[in-house]
Amino acid sequence: MRFDKKRLAHIVFESDDPVSKKFDIILLIAILGSVLIAILDSVKDLHQAYGRIFYVLEWVVTALFTIEYGLRVWLSRRKLGYVFSFFGIVDLLAVLPTYLSIFILNTQLLVVVRALRFLRVLRVLKLGRYLRESQILAQALYNSRLKIMIFLGAVVTIILVMGTVMFLIEGPESGFTNIPMSMYWAIVTLTTVGYGDISPITPLGKMVASMIMLLGYAIIAVPTGIVTSEITVASRKREEELFSKRVCPTCHAERHDADAYHCKYCGTRL
Amino acid sequence: MRFDKKRLAHIVFESDDPVSKKFDIILLIAILGSVLIAILDSVKDLHQAYGRIFYVLEWVVTALFTIEYGLRVWLSRRKLGYVFSFFGIVDLLAVLPTYLSIFILNTQLLVVVRALRFLRVLRVLKLGRYLRESQILAQALYNSRLKIMIFLGAVVTIILVMGTVMFLIEGPESGFTNIPMSMYWAIVTLTTVGYGDISPITPLGKMVASMIMLLGYAIIAVPTGIVTSEITVASRKREEELFSKRVCPTCHAERHDADAYHCKYCGTRL
Amino acid sequence: MRFDKKRLAHIVFESDDPVSKKFDIILLIAILGSVLIAILDSVKDLHQAYGRIFYVLEWVVTALFTIEYGLRVWLSRRKLGYVFSFFGIVDLLAVLPTYLSIFILNTQLLVVVRALRFLRVLRVLKLGRYLRESQILAQALYNSRLKIMIFLGAVVTIILVMGTVMFLIEGPESGFTNIPMSMYWAIVTLTTVGYGDISPITPLGKMVASMIMLLGYAIIAVPTGIVTSEITVASRKREEELFSKRVCPTCHAERHDADAYHCKYCGTRL
Amino acid sequence: MRFDKKRLAHIVFESDDPVSKKFDIILLIAILGSVLIAILDSVKDLHQAYGRIFYVLEWVVTALFTIEYGLRVWLSRRKLGYVFSFFGIVDLLAVLPTYLSIFILNTQLLVVVRALRFLRVLRVLKLGRYLRESQILAQALYNSRLKIMIFLGAVVTIILVMGTVMFLIEGPESGFTNIPMSMYWAIVTLTTVGYGDISPITPLGKMVASMIMLLGYAIIAVPTGIVTSEITVASRKREEELFSKRVCPTCHAERHDADAYHCKYCGTRL
Repeated sequence: MRFDKKRLAHIVFESDDPVSKKFDIILLIAILGSVLIAILDSVKDLHQAYGRIFYVLEWVVTALFTIEYGLRVWLSRRKLGYVFSFFGIVDLLAVLPTYLSIFILNTQLLVVVRALRFLRVLRVLKLGRYLRESQILAQALYNSRLKIMIFLGAVVTIILVMGTVMFLIEGPESGFTNIPMSMYWAIVTLTTVGYGDISPITPLGKMVASMIMLLGYAIIAVPTGIVTSEITVASRKREEELFSKRVCPTCHAERHDADAYHCKYCGTRL
Repeated sequence: MRFDKKRLAHIVFESDDPVSKKFDIILLIAILGSVLIAILDSVKDLHQAYGRIFYVLEWVVTALFTIEYGLRVWLSRRKLGYVFSFFGIVDLLAVLPTYLSIFILNTQLLVVVRALRFLRVLRVLKLGRYLRESQILAQALYNSRLKIMIFLGAVVTIILVMGTVMFLIEGPESGFTNIPMSMYWAIVTLTTVGYGDISPITPLGKMVASMIMLLGYAIIAVPTGIVTSEITVASRKREEELFSKRVCPTCHAERHDADAYHCKYCGTRL
Repeated sequence: MRFDKKRLAHIVFESDDPVSKKFDIILLIAILGSVLIAILDSVKDLHQAYGRIFYVLEWVVTALFTIEYGLRVWLSRRKLGYVFSFFGIVDLLAVLPTYLSIFILNTQLLVVVRALRFLRVLRVLKLGRYLRESQILAQALYNSRLKIMIFLGAVVTIILVMGTVMFLIEGPESGFTNIPMSMYWAIVTLTTVGYGDISPITPLGKMVASMIMLLGYAIIAVPTGIVTSEITVASRKREEELFSKRVCPTCHAERHDADAYHCKYCGTRL
Repeated sequence: MRFDKKRLAHIVFESDDPVSKKFDIILLIAILGSVLIAILDSVKDLHQAYGRIFYVLEWVVTALFTIEYGLRVWLSRRKLGYVFSFFGIVDLLAVLPTYLSIFILNTQLLVVVRALRFLRVLRVLKLGRYLRESQILAQALYNSRLKIMIFLGAVVTIILVMGTVMFLIEGPESGFTNIPMSMYWAIVTLTTVGYGDISPITPLGKMVASMIMLLGYAIIAVPTGIVTSEITVASRKREEELFSKRVCPTCHAERHDADAYHCKYCGTRL
């Protein structure tokens, strides 16, 4: 088969036919693999035992990603458009760290950047069905952003006030050494995480703590309510769009089902 | 009363009359009993005190299940159909381990298989009302599978990135010995479990941890919202089905709206 | 004012006028007071310091409750009906323990019975508005009972299987001494309580634990979804009931607003 | 530009044009700054290192707030109306502590009052969009207040009864030294916080604890359901208001349904 740039571009950018789907899946495996290497390499024992192999694999994956990145730049119609797109930057961040590791010795820092590689998994969202669903979720979260910010504002206020109060009640000897520490405890408690590294000792402190717990236990209902209501609205909207918008010429009744041939109020042919 | 295979099959497979209901309930008791034995036998003291009794009961229950299994195979019209059905396999797994225990000495392994016996409790779902309700739930979860997978994807990304970040901030001396361990901590924190076996020590670490907690506290709203909205839709659908089941006298079309006065397909007065 | 049995009965049983409301409120204070005494008396220091006072107050409150109980029996039309009603039994349980304490020395046991006294607080539900709201909640919970039982069944199965699995992975040295203990840990983890008294040590155990946490974090969405949807339905039902059920004599359109004087489809006078 | 009191009042009290918006933003920064100082100053090391700077900044911020407070009093039409309004009091509380610190030496106490300063952040709610959203939330919470109080009543009853039961089962040696302590544990467990500072030791205690955990894990669904349903209703109401705002030409009645073709009050064709 003679070379065909259009076809290649299709394989790389789309995912609506077997070949391009296969390309995406291979890519996903490579991405997950590269992340796995980064994780395992951080385990001392594994690093000592297989560090060499990880090192090689690291470069293999990087090579693949470099080629892929090159392809994408070369194949995309608007080159800069891709380079400065979200995925363009993510793709670049996926290969840079390994090359930088030659010059920079602080590998620690690179591990983080390499972690960003995981963002490439988002490419899966390209796969049609996921895209629509995630748009609905995104829409719902976007619509409820104001409400959620108000909620977070309230939570922060509670944390600050309660943190200060507990600092005054418990004092340093219980581990509430200062307000920031006391606020950290308030967060740990309000979110019902409850490490137990710091916990109130005085009876009064325990009473206030109980109040915070019950508060945190109850107010979780608020963000949940906000998001739920938005998601319900979003999906209802989608449903209604499937509704026909036809109007009856005789009685002007609206909201006929999509499969209606006659007005359900007066029987006129639609 | 002379033997009647049809009747027996009805008792074993159905549960719509007193006798077959009684059969199901006896079966359930036997199942729960067998599970209880397995649990209690794992307690050292109880094993030493009553190990012998447990052993006998174990064989009694197994005998009962074997007979039941035999009956089901013998009575079912399509024998292989049953043997390879979900419940067919579960029923087999419920009796096998005890027999295997004669040959295999590693009883530990058998305990797990025996645990699968509990899946037999699902037989209760056969009981009509439960079946319909569980179908609604299953439907709701199935409809929201894409959204939930997207949510889990986001959670996994958060865990990986945050885990790596905390590994770099806290380092081994705080217990964040490597990225996997750090990710484990991230999961413990994000899900608000908060064992406290590992917890941040540095101020910066505590700040990032606080962010993760607030994040985990807030995003729980998303899956809840997804499932709630689906369940609401599902039950509304069911309600609507209870709506006008009227049939058009001319074209015999069904599913007319509650407020329809003419068939929406042919216009005939309903 | 001369004695009036009817009036007294009204004061005791109803709460729709100032006097009877006052009676209920005084009663509530007495109930809360008696509970408070029981609680404070359990604190060693307070018992040693004020035990005598608590003892006296205890008898005062009991005397009051006895009089009240007597009144209720005497005033209620169907005496046995009250005595064996829920509140009749609760009211009796509120006074019995103190009298029993003369004969029985194990005060511990009495403390529990006395705790039941708190159930009397439910009397507040008599106050109209609360009653209707709590009926809506009760209705919603009752409607979702099947779904919730299925959910609990699933949770129990997860706990049993996971508990057994962790028992085999971690073993006694990590604190997973037997299956019941391991199931206890599974509950602590799945419900995101996370005491940390037992927590996995082996890498594999940590992985399984992570799965359980994410599971527990996600499936909380199910009961929430169930209850939410039921409550929404319940309140929508109530709304619709406020809707008028009038039908237009000309076009037979239904669902006119409660404040409609003319059919909104054809304009006919309703 | 010559002085203009009206204009100044507008800048201070409104936030619907660039200048007044800028004023609000500068104010917010000052507020957040003052809070940050209070927090950092509570850290011993920072206090020793920068205590002097904090002290100065503290007075600078206080001076600014005093001027602002003065302006608001002077510019507001109904002076006392502002002074005794919620924000009027908050604004005063924001400046008082610093002045009091000259006479009172117990700075601790002042820290709390100073924390109230954070409430000024609520001023952001003035910014239109936030106001409407927060009203919807407030409305939803207000509508569900009865249901939530019933829920809290149930939770408190559970905590009291379970706390007493666990006190009797576990006893002092497990840390359940008295009923209040035992109730504290019950709250920590029911809200799924789970510090682990106190946890059951006896098998029976562990069983009861498991029940409490599952209960706490399940009943969180109730407040969530309540709030969600209210928020859904609230936003649906808002949607409907955006519905046909048509006015009847004859009787000038408003609020006709979107599907109305005749005025439902007088029957005139819309």
